[in-house]
Amino acid sequence: MKIGFVGSGAMGEPMVRNLLKAGHTVTVFNRRRERSAALAADGAQVAASVADAARQEIVITMLADDTATEQLVLDGAFIRAMPADGVHVCMATISAALAERLQSTHGAAGRAYVSAPVFGRPPAAASAQLFIVAAGEDSALDRCQPVFDALGQKTFRVGAMPAAANVIKISGNFMLASMIESLGEACALSSRYGVPPSQLVEILTSSVFPVPAYKVYGGLIASGQFEPPGFPLRLGLKDIRLALAAADSKDVALPIASLVRDHYLKALTRGYADFDWAALALVSMEDAGASPRR
Amino acid sequence: MKIGFVGSGAMGEPMVRNLLKAGHTVTVFNRRRERSAALAADGAQVAASVADAARQEIVITMLADDTATEQLVLDGAFIRAMPADGVHVCMATISAALAERLQSTHGAAGRAYVSAPVFGRPPAAASAQLFIVAAGEDSALDRCQPVFDALGQKTFRVGAMPAAANVIKISGNFMLASMIESLGEACALSSRYGVPPSQLVEILTSSVFPVPAYKVYGGLIASGQFEPPGFPLRLGLKDIRLALAAADSKDVALPIASLVRDHYLKALTRGYADFDWAALALVSMEDAGASPRR
Amino acid sequence: MKIGFVGSGAMGEPMVRNLLKAGHTVTVFNRRRERSAALAADGAQVAASVADAARQEIVITMLADDTATEQLVLDGAFIRAMPADGVHVCMATISAALAERLQSTHGAAGRAYVSAPVFGRPPAAASAQLFIVAAGEDSALDRCQPVFDALGQKTFRVGAMPAAANVIKISGNFMLASMIESLGEACALSSRYGVPPSQLVEILTSSVFPVPAYKVYGGLIASGQFEPPGFPLRLGLKDIRLALAAADSKDVALPIASLVRDHYLKALTRGYADFDWAALALVSMEDAGASPRR
Amino acid sequence: MKIGFVGSGAMGEPMVRNLLKAGHTVTVFNRRRERSAALAADGAQVAASVADAARQEIVITMLADDTATEQLVLDGAFIRAMPADGVHVCMATISAALAERLQSTHGAAGRAYVSAPVFGRPPAAASAQLFIVAAGEDSALDRCQPVFDALGQKTFRVGAMPAAANVIKISGNFMLASMIESLGEACALSSRYGVPPSQLVEILTSSVFPVPAYKVYGGLIASGQFEPPGFPLRLGLKDIRLALAAADSKDVALPIASLVRDHYLKALTRGYADFDWAALALVSMEDAGASPRR
Repeated sequence: MKIGFVGSGAMGEPMVRNLLKAGHTVTVFNRRRERSAALAADGAQVAASVADAARQEIVITMLADDTATEQLVLDGAFIRAMPADGVHVCMATISAALAERLQSTHGAAGRAYVSAPVFGRPPAAASAQLFIVAAGEDSALDRCQPVFDALGQKTFRVGAMPAAANVIKISGNFMLASMIESLGEACALSSRYGVPPSQLVEILTSSVFPVPAYKVYGGLIASGQFEPPGFPLRLGLKDIRLALAAADSKDVALPIASLVRDHYLKALTRGYADFDWAALALVSMEDAGASPRR
Repeated sequence: MKIGFVGSGAMGEPMVRNLLKAGHTVTVFNRRRERSAALAADGAQVAASVADAARQEIVITMLADDTATEQLVLDGAFIRAMPADGVHVCMATISAALAERLQSTHGAAGRAYVSAPVFGRPPAAASAQLFIVAAGEDSALDRCQPVFDALGQKTFRVGAMPAAANVIKISGNFMLASMIESLGEACALSSRYGVPPSQLVEILTSSVFPVPAYKVYGGLIASGQFEPPGFPLRLGLKDIRLALAAADSKDVALPIASLVRDHYLKALTRGYADFDWAALALVSMEDAGASPRR
Repeated sequence: MKIGFVGSGAMGEPMVRNLLKAGHTVTVFNRRRERSAALAADGAQVAASVADAARQEIVITMLADDTATEQLVLDGAFIRAMPADGVHVCMATISAALAERLQSTHGAAGRAYVSAPVFGRPPAAASAQLFIVAAGEDSALDRCQPVFDALGQKTFRVGAMPAAANVIKISGNFMLASMIESLGEACALSSRYGVPPSQLVEILTSSVFPVPAYKVYGGLIASGQFEPPGFPLRLGLKDIRLALAAADSKDVALPIASLVRDHYLKALTRGYADFDWAALALVSMEDAGASPRR
Repeated sequence: MKIGFVGSGAMGEPMVRNLLKAGHTVTVFNRRRERSAALAADGAQVAASVADAARQEIVITMLADDTATEQLVLDGAFIRAMPADGVHVCMATISAALAERLQSTHGAAGRAYVSAPVFGRPPAAASAQLFIVAAGEDSALDRCQPVFDALGQKTFRVGAMPAAANVIKISGNFMLASMIESLGEACALSSRYGVPPSQLVEILTSSVFPVPAYKVYGGLIASGQFEPPGFPLRLGLKDIRLALAAADSKDVALPIASLVRDHYLKALTRGYADFDWAALALVSMEDAGASPRR
């Protein structure tokens, strides 16, 4: 298929390579053109403008946040460039509100919109092992399926309302942040009874939580090593804000999310914005005089 | 070995059977004598008094809570009956404070004390698949090892301070309760965007959290089925109180535990004391108008 | 002085009357023209457009929220109509972010901007007993002083940065909401020990808190009478969101505000949006089985 | 009347003087006998034992906490010494649970028990301006009234269940701690917008909260001066624990109390145990990089 790809960063770049590998024609657009250059060597077309990317059968956006997505997609040129049967697939973690706005804007223009955020970090993107949560009209999802097959190990189709996919992705990140916070609290407690975090983590992940998420974040917390970040704390804060905003607009209280947000803000004040988001755990540990950092 | 076993309830009974199966002589004491009778048929000795159980080489207590343990162990007769090289092993989930008190009381009487709480529910006890977290003097732990081998799949030895083992067990239950609460909040949020809890749970447990704990509790929450309880909510509350008390005595704040305790109290007011502790999730779901129950 | 007044609702209308009484010429603009008519009978000029109001020496806006203020002030016509030495005074409770935006927009156009939010409900507005918190350039504040003198019992000048005044107002409303929430929790507790809320409130307001704020809100809570609202709950929620947003943008955690926001959201789900904001107290009381309502 | 007085510390000593001034015969007992000596010079009798004090018509206890009260009152000698129509009046801030236990123990012995905790600090005790909240059998309260008249400016009689009085006192202290915490959060927020805490406090206490409680604690917070303590932080923590325990035993969640407790624990870790309890506000201020201390 002819695919446009807007935003080939840490996640996007390996995704583009997998699309190329699967035999698709990929036209890449980045605001910083040097980003596209690396992919050109591997066979990607370099778009001169975002419209060049939008003009393809399917156009994927994988931009940093709501603001970047709004600026590139909602300025008019993007949608005007899309063919009548084009599909815009947003695979980034954006807000439920923006997903709803994209759905209605595309709908008004007679274009198809799909939300398809992913679970997985850059290595999973590289090995095409992402989990993809996709929502949109059935016909649009059908058209996208070959793309999803090239990028992930599994696609969950969750209905016709795109925002539902975003809320699932946001919920997953909320669950991960909750886990990090509670690991931090548990490590603070155990430390004060002479149990080092590494021992607590090893026991928990050998018994009730034998799963990579607990092992990876528990390991980071126990080691006190938060640099370089796999996923920086300020983006973790961004995602918890997305959870709170999505909940707020439906009158849903998320007390753990409120608490996690407050701890993220304290982490910023302590200078941890660019640490891995596992550094959220530092707040409770430090407050208990049980910091893992030397 | 000759083993005394005090308290053969839902967890203790299958544990006694595994000890018998491994060839140990087990003398069982229960305040309700009919509990012992069932085991007598399988070869257990029935103790006439708690002292009869305490008189063995190793005496295990597996009682409901701190109060029951204090009443049976700290009344004098128990410790007087123990042989000079006897070991008292408490495998129940008791407070860090009581563990410290048992350690010093036994120590003053020249007897050995080991805390060895377990992770696992009755089926895991029956199949000798428990995880055992054991702390106490090395020599005492060595003597207990054959017992642990008959009961669990793995023993974690965590040093000479018995309370450390209890704090690890308490931390594990705190982590599980945090997970239940955050699942409840995530289900409340997604429900309001049209995603049924069963779908959210399926996606999360197929991707980031592919582990029985999330599957079991997520399944209970999604189905809204909390009876009969695997582990009743009022015991979940008991355990979160143990976490808060252990933390309080070391000046450690556990904000998620505070929040979870508050939700447990609300759950009691709503009449859920005897539901499975996964019903903790109902509080946030109901507060958002997203109850899974009909 | 010649004063423009935009938004003569429950608070604005008595304010306009006090300005007229003090001898000022007041040109009133409302999007619903019938609102202005009532004041015309008392001597106010009715503006045909918002520009007519903006054209005066000083133009006051007293609109419902950020959105209404943005729409009327930031569409271009308003600022173009202001005379070179005109002052725009926003006396409504708006966000710190909007105050900063108004300051920079007016600044770029060479116009003066003052934030001057007020403490006091409609009866205080009617009797010119408002407390006014004003921030902006000294020269602009000097020009506004006769206006403030006609409207309030006291003006606090808090420097040259307009947003500072908004943050003080927002902090005051946050303090009031905290008080309501903690009164609700205290009433829930005491009720369960047989102390009716009315008795607790009477004792607290006769001893440690002998002040109208506690008496008024304590009285509403004790009576369970939340209709008609003096200040509706959904506006209380709006203000706590302003506090959280102002704090968030400076990396400040406000844990009580987070908790209050969560309880407001639950109150919405329970159908209390149009109750007096004192109904925030119902959440904790109901959750404890101690509702004051029959 | 003949009055026994057990525990003449910072509060008790001026109370004894006021009883003497009103013409009562007062027999004072202190575990540290030198405490009684000072009062002997003013006409008090010095008791040789706690029983000597308990033997009077009315015996007042004003001890530091539950433990001290239990040790002196519940060891048998105290109650045996009381005359058949004697009344024990506990004026200290003790737990609801201990009040219930005192009520039943005295009841079983045919003696009268009254809970009569007070609002007011040492200067209010000295000027007989305390507020007294009294609960117990009517006949016992009637007998105590002359005592209360000598000690306070007002007595609130709140029924026959002594614990009700304790819960009201505990609720009052909870309300004060909530106020301190929310002042701390509001000061953190305003500071980050350039508003010094002293200015915020002045405005709030000149407008919505013109009351000594806000002025005193707001002043302490704004000045960053927490030594010497009027009421030390570790006692503030003790009282919030009383609130949480009273609430817990009736299944009542007090989310603000949970949050305040967590902040008290952090304050302990930061070394503020012996600061005035207003130092609770430091936690949120420091976490926002807005400490008032230099």
